Amino acid sequence: MQFTNTPLNLIAVCGPGTIVNPELASLAEQIGREIAKAGWGVVCGGLDGVMSATCRGARAEGGFTVGILPGTDRMVANPYISLPICTGINEARNLVVVATGQVVIAVGGEWGTLSEIALARKIGRQVVLIAGQGWNIQRADENSVTGIAIAQTPAEAVALAIQLTKI
Amino acid sequence: MQFTNTPLNLIAVCGPGTIVNPELASLAEQIGREIAKAGWGVVCGGLDGVMSATCRGARAEGGFTVGILPGTDRMVANPYISLPICTGINEARNLVVVATGQVVIAVGGEWGTLSEIALARKIGRQVVLIAGQGWNIQRADENSVTGIAIAQTPAEAVALAIQLTKI
Amino acid sequence: MQFTNTPLNLIAVCGPGTIVNPELASLAEQIGREIAKAGWGVVCGGLDGVMSATCRGARAEGGFTVGILPGTDRMVANPYISLPICTGINEARNLVVVATGQVVIAVGGEWGTLSEIALARKIGRQVVLIAGQGWNIQRADENSVTGIAIAQTPAEAVALAIQLTKI
Amino acid sequence: MQFTNTPLNLIAVCGPGTIVNPELASLAEQIGREIAKAGWGVVCGGLDGVMSATCRGARAEGGFTVGILPGTDRMVANPYISLPICTGINEARNLVVVATGQVVIAVGGEWGTLSEIALARKIGRQVVLIAGQGWNIQRADENSVTGIAIAQTPAEAVALAIQLTKI
Repeated sequence: MQFTNTPLNLIAVCGPGTIVNPELASLAEQIGREIAKAGWGVVCGGLDGVMSATCRGARAEGGFTVGILPGTDRMVANPYISLPICTGINEARNLVVVATGQVVIAVGGEWGTLSEIALARKIGRQVVLIAGQGWNIQRADENSVTGIAIAQTPAEAVALAIQLTKI
Repeated sequence: MQFTNTPLNLIAVCGPGTIVNPELASLAEQIGREIAKAGWGVVCGGLDGVMSATCRGARAEGGFTVGILPGTDRMVANPYISLPICTGINEARNLVVVATGQVVIAVGGEWGTLSEIALARKIGRQVVLIAGQGWNIQRADENSVTGIAIAQTPAEAVALAIQLTKI
Repeated sequence: MQFTNTPLNLIAVCGPGTIVNPELASLAEQIGREIAKAGWGVVCGGLDGVMSATCRGARAEGGFTVGILPGTDRMVANPYISLPICTGINEARNLVVVATGQVVIAVGGEWGTLSEIALARKIGRQVVLIAGQGWNIQRADENSVTGIAIAQTPAEAVALAIQLTKI
Repeated sequence: MQFTNTPLNLIAVCGPGTIVNPELASLAEQIGREIAKAGWGVVCGGLDGVMSATCRGARAEGGFTVGILPGTDRMVANPYISLPICTGINEARNLVVVATGQVVIAVGGEWGTLSEIALARKIGRQVVLIAGQGWNIQRADENSVTGIAIAQTPAEAVALAIQLTKI
């Protein structure tokens, strides 16, 4: 892709580093494709599973992908990362992933993903989930939860995410 | 309290920095009292709300309290902190809070608290919630959630937490 | 610039956020130009002073610049940043800057810069200094210091830095 | 030691994790003894070498020692740590060590130690070095360096450090 003077807009995509479910891999790849087709970049944790599938989709459409890695070795990034960022701060990098995205799409029921959803909301990023995939975000006392949107499909998730950055 | 050669055992207590609910303040204070009565220390985020109430309870029973602060100024710690730890890493300190506890008790429905529950599980710490207070932890696809226990009372929460460190 | 399948190679440039010395600004801008002319990208702390001057130089030659920001707001990046990374971990981001570069060039005598030189060496990155600008790295006991090279000019610094990544 | 309502005052002691020099071990142990005799606590990186020797000295005089560990496992702390803090952020914990101390004493010529000296000054902590041990802190352009004091002996270093917190 061609860079211009305006910094690239980024959507953070959060999900498990190991995929046991082919449906989830396909979903992640489609999210990556839709992000790239919309002219945005992907930022993620840079490793395998949902991260790799999303980046593969984005790169297939000519997109740009940023991998926020846990360690200091850029060689561990998945092969679809355009730009590896080495943090050296392990799981604390989850904050960097969601802070670097202007909005977050999360899929899959891994604990790290839940931490990213929560950290995103803590610092004011909107979050889009895919219906039936991953976490149900509910308070025990039934107080309403704000800033979490639910999409039915990858295309809807990406459209919704971009729209949420413009409010 | 008197220190011995054995490092102090610590329970991380996570909850909102602002309390709008007097029931929650009372609950937090009781958790702190029970932790101290069991001979354990409290580690928390060091600020107000649930953190301060828990530490007040612990100190009232002669307990020891560690505050993992977001910034580099120890003077912002609540007045019941025995030992302020200044991290300078803001919200990323949530990882330090749960990693420093050998087990985690979480109450209240704040996003930072949800991030601490998730980070705790990510690094293998067991988590105890109080029934009806705070977050419901559920996967959308109804996969079982492991490592989260539910207690009915502060005394039960602390007893359960300590028991979980011995498994 | 056009991205290819290979992740972009990056040189970390470290220096003060405020420039009191026009010679230093000119030096930094020239370092940025030379990095871009060599086909590498710049990674820096993303703010003003040496960081901004280096990025201005790099962009003037069509280069790519990554800004590792202290907070969670991408709008504070200097106007020459192609890609802002929001860390939310304040001064601890210095580790991210030097870990993300494959080699480090440091100029100017600010404490943050000295911390980046030291952290770079701690994690095994080579460091290039400009003669007479910034820090003298010496042990009191005169043990030799390894992994620090001295260049006379910006062009020499960049050539040396790239060469050091190939050893 | 007996805890009171006032948070314990802490001196950060920074030095290499491996000691090749018996003189340095003896120096570190003496620093720990002097800190404890003055009624202050030690905060350090919690591992071996200078960290362990300092804590051994402090504990021998009935003192209290805090270990800011790189990982999430408290069992790696040296045996003289009263309170292990698990950060999970690796080398970025160096910021936590110096921010938690109200003043810093640094010995030995390791890169991590130099990063701690620099980070301490960056966030405004005063630093005491021991003459002839470790780093010479000099700017290439001979601008004066502020906030670094030189002591001749462990006793002088600790007295100077405590005095610097009162200015």
